[in-house]
Amino acid sequence: MNKAIERARPEIKIKPEMKIIRNPDEMQALANRLREKGLVIGFVPTMGYLHEGHASLLRTARQQSDAVVLSIFVNPTQFAPNEDLDKYPRDMKRDEKIARQEGTDYIFYPEASTMYVPGYQTYVNVEELPRSHCGRTRPTHFRGVATVCTKLFNIVLPHRAFFGQKDYQQAAVIKRMVKDLNMNLEIMVLPTVREADGLAMSSRNVYLQPEERKQAVCLRESLEIAKDMVRKGETEAQKIVAAMRRHIESKPKARVDYVSIADTETLAELETITGEAVALVAVYFGKTRLIDNEVLKAG
Amino acid sequence: MNKAIERARPEIKIKPEMKIIRNPDEMQALANRLREKGLVIGFVPTMGYLHEGHASLLRTARQQSDAVVLSIFVNPTQFAPNEDLDKYPRDMKRDEKIARQEGTDYIFYPEASTMYVPGYQTYVNVEELPRSHCGRTRPTHFRGVATVCTKLFNIVLPHRAFFGQKDYQQAAVIKRMVKDLNMNLEIMVLPTVREADGLAMSSRNVYLQPEERKQAVCLRESLEIAKDMVRKGETEAQKIVAAMRRHIESKPKARVDYVSIADTETLAELETITGEAVALVAVYFGKTRLIDNEVLKAG
Repeated sequence: MNKAIERARPEIKIKPEMKIIRNPDEMQALANRLREKGLVIGFVPTMGYLHEGHASLLRTARQQSDAVVLSIFVNPTQFAPNEDLDKYPRDMKRDEKIARQEGTDYIFYPEASTMYVPGYQTYVNVEELPRSHCGRTRPTHFRGVATVCTKLFNIVLPHRAFFGQKDYQQAAVIKRMVKDLNMNLEIMVLPTVREADGLAMSSRNVYLQPEERKQAVCLRESLEIAKDMVRKGETEAQKIVAAMRRHIESKPKARVDYVSIADTETLAELETITGEAVALVAVYFGKTRLIDNEVLKAG
Repeated sequence: MNKAIERARPEIKIKPEMKIIRNPDEMQALANRLREKGLVIGFVPTMGYLHEGHASLLRTARQQSDAVVLSIFVNPTQFAPNEDLDKYPRDMKRDEKIARQEGTDYIFYPEASTMYVPGYQTYVNVEELPRSHCGRTRPTHFRGVATVCTKLFNIVLPHRAFFGQKDYQQAAVIKRMVKDLNMNLEIMVLPTVREADGLAMSSRNVYLQPEERKQAVCLRESLEIAKDMVRKGETEAQKIVAAMRRHIESKPKARVDYVSIADTETLAELETITGEAVALVAVYFGKTRLIDNEVLKAG
């Protein structure tokens, strides 16, 4: 337990039971009270169906904050009509248990009808970053993500919000938005948490059939290939991308969406790796689309 | 002096001299300190060249807040390339004097290069409200307004922000945005302040030639005609609009942009007035475009 918590907890009398808050105005009023008491608010926004990746975000938030808020909201505006909004996996009882284990103080668990009220018409657009990579396959996705994060940040009023590196482009879009709009918080991006065989944790892994699940490790393997080539001195992005793609395409159930080596901040496609770059992959297994990434360091 | 100020002022030791802050991060850090002290921040965002309308906003902010922040920023993103960004009137010395007279604590006076940093790409879009009225003539204007207000709200962290009713559609757009994005502040809209002959105060009135200035009172007169007709029982919007338009068009220097009777919240054009409605006018005098409005109450 860090000092902030030792100092703060008796003061605000957080109950041993975690509190679930459904109403946005109630959550905002509570956040204002926490801030007026000088408490540091750490925030982990999620769509629920928590896995060890989310748990690691909660754990770090717990270490760095006086009050930890987890939001669980399957945000409709970041799904396209043809996507998996309705079948997105949910398990609130299990989520509550994990949240409690990680020392969460509040779960903000709103209904879509209170988040998107009648006459709703305001969206936050990051204009360039979402055009490439996942944004090409999901053209309205990041508008939904930027908008809901803006709303959640305004409701929860966190000092820090915690995201996983697995969703690299999402983190880049949010960091850009926070900088551009002078939002009053810090974005923390924490390392991807993986299954034993290297597959990045994702709520969507549950969609995979057994054979797909086995082959899905090829995303991680392709990133290892990239790291290895860079370690051995390869700087030509095209050659690395080709090797990664060959590996993924050797798996019969895998269909490549993209394989890319890009600037870590702008996500502009790179020809030559000098200094840092990020390798990003997106691969379909049936209708399930998986992503992963790795930062590469040349020289 | 209200109680909040009596209580708060000795505590934060606001100097008799007002402070001018140019750096957004410095302003935000200061706003965070004010909030941590439990002080209520009142905010008046302007493009400078202050007139009695702005002064009345500052006066009300002073009454309702512990700390009053005025921003002066001629925001480039709300001007189209063909508009008056470069010739927009400025007079910082006079603005400082007025601000000081009204008890302003801080002027936030940023440079465009610190508000729109390299790689800037994030915009807030209210999608429907800006399509009609002024938005038809100025299609990118409200995107710029919504974006800069979001930025300013995030930097100044006000409890309340004060706007004039003269810019009716602007206030409607901002209220919608604040509601939709759950922004943590209250929007206060104060009555339009007028010249002796009824012309709404506007920084742009300085553009008017003497003969145009005389005829410009026709905006206000047309609104009086509307009020009068409603008072006498007229409910058909088209008849009222026609009478207003006739009056404005009787002035040789006036060119109507729009005359409208609309829903007070959605700004949808009305056929019949039942309950409240808003009459809105926009009129060109040469290149100068003036606006005015009046809320009508039927029955």
